Amino acid sequence: MNPLTTVQTVIDALTANITAARPEPTVDKLLIGDPNAPVSGIVTTFMPTLSIARQAASLGANLVIGHEGLFFSHHERLDGSSEGEIERIKRQQLEALEVAIFRLHDGIHRYSPDGITEGLVAKLGWSDHVREYRPEACLLDIPSAPLRDIAEEIKTRLGLACLRISGRPETVFSRVALLAGYRGGGTLTIPLLESKDADLVIYGEGPEWETPEYVREAARIGRQCGLIVLGHAESEDPGMERLAESLSGLFPHIPVRHLREEASLRIL
Amino acid sequence: MNPLTTVQTVIDALTANITAARPEPTVDKLLIGDPNAPVSGIVTTFMPTLSIARQAASLGANLVIGHEGLFFSHHERLDGSSEGEIERIKRQQLEALEVAIFRLHDGIHRYSPDGITEGLVAKLGWSDHVREYRPEACLLDIPSAPLRDIAEEIKTRLGLACLRISGRPETVFSRVALLAGYRGGGTLTIPLLESKDADLVIYGEGPEWETPEYVREAARIGRQCGLIVLGHAESEDPGMERLAESLSGLFPHIPVRHLREEASLRIL
Repeated sequence: MNPLTTVQTVIDALTANITAARPEPTVDKLLIGDPNAPVSGIVTTFMPTLSIARQAASLGANLVIGHEGLFFSHHERLDGSSEGEIERIKRQQLEALEVAIFRLHDGIHRYSPDGITEGLVAKLGWSDHVREYRPEACLLDIPSAPLRDIAEEIKTRLGLACLRISGRPETVFSRVALLAGYRGGGTLTIPLLESKDADLVIYGEGPEWETPEYVREAARIGRQCGLIVLGHAESEDPGMERLAESLSGLFPHIPVRHLREEASLRIL
Repeated sequence: MNPLTTVQTVIDALTANITAARPEPTVDKLLIGDPNAPVSGIVTTFMPTLSIARQAASLGANLVIGHEGLFFSHHERLDGSSEGEIERIKRQQLEALEVAIFRLHDGIHRYSPDGITEGLVAKLGWSDHVREYRPEACLLDIPSAPLRDIAEEIKTRLGLACLRISGRPETVFSRVALLAGYRGGGTLTIPLLESKDADLVIYGEGPEWETPEYVREAARIGRQCGLIVLGHAESEDPGMERLAESLSGLFPHIPVRHLREEASLRIL
């Protein structure tokens, strides 16, 4: 028989893999629930919505591990005084479910390699094409293909209805920089393109007039580079899916599942 | 006969309308060109790309007024030492065109009301529906309509191929908060929704898991609110178009045109 696995046991296991110092204060913490509660089941997810927590409860799971926070901002407040109405209702409904919610953001980005990036690489089927993992990006040499074909393959692999591109769809690329989450700013991406470490940048989210404008001007000037924008959730969800597989291995006596929300923004 | 109009004359006219202190240092400045050059024609634009500057030159205009900067970041560097290759080539090609480029960002956002927001309101045909102008947002009472219909009308008015929404397409809205540019963060939008100053937020650009997630959770909890995301350039271009009209009135002897770039990101 297995020893009792508590919420804290799982948190300790998640924390054991961290190889670099987290920001101080870290956003990673038990947002709701009792660390000493025995764990009946685990759900991993990118965005811990009410709907995801309810699905977890109906599956018999009492621990949700979310990548982002509950209350619509990276550094959320949990003090009652400044709590908004929607925040309060969501918190009360979550508490009533008796599901613990742990946020794993800074830690998984500091696994070696970054657990979110590694999950995205695996889901894309590109694990054998990795040239180098850096803290903020994975550099890859993928089979040469036109931007349009690479984008279509990504849509199929990740199950996306759409994505966004900048650059000429017919240009052929093989040297890729992959940046999960909100790492699409020019400060991170432009040096990768200028140094020729990559010709094609693929990121989750970034400011609209930094990298896309650089790529457009560069392509017009004659330096062929390209960009694929996946969406923030779309780029980080596979890492949380992969975490569920790892936790299944660590806690074989506990049911572990990954749940994916629908896209919060739809194209019209 | 008109007195000689120089680049500095036009800059002075643009600056005269500013009603609040600009950030220090402001990004508004003559990025390229000679302030004493006589102006043969003016082009206004959101994004001063090489292509826009070339079109201006071919139209006989030697002053481009852009809302954003030349080099892919809000606080761009212009010192030669740290200049990247694409930046250098773009700067050299711009200088060879002998077109002056002035950036008008902080200033036009400090017209009363905000010149970018006012231009967007006018282009949407909503000038008669304004309830209140605040520094960061315009509050409006528009004719009640389902989210889907409002979004479709906006696409037609602004000439957009697509936009993004969060919330139920069939929900009817009339109380709107309109935020041009990168003002879509939860810190600005959520208080407008919590206070019931608006039920429908329309913004240019913002972090993907702030306002969209708030709107989704609120709608699921029963507070009907909605979101329309226009795109950063798409939300600010009409303000620069309107500026061309104002300048035509101020300088009737000088040809003034507005030029619009194609979208830098395309949906696939």
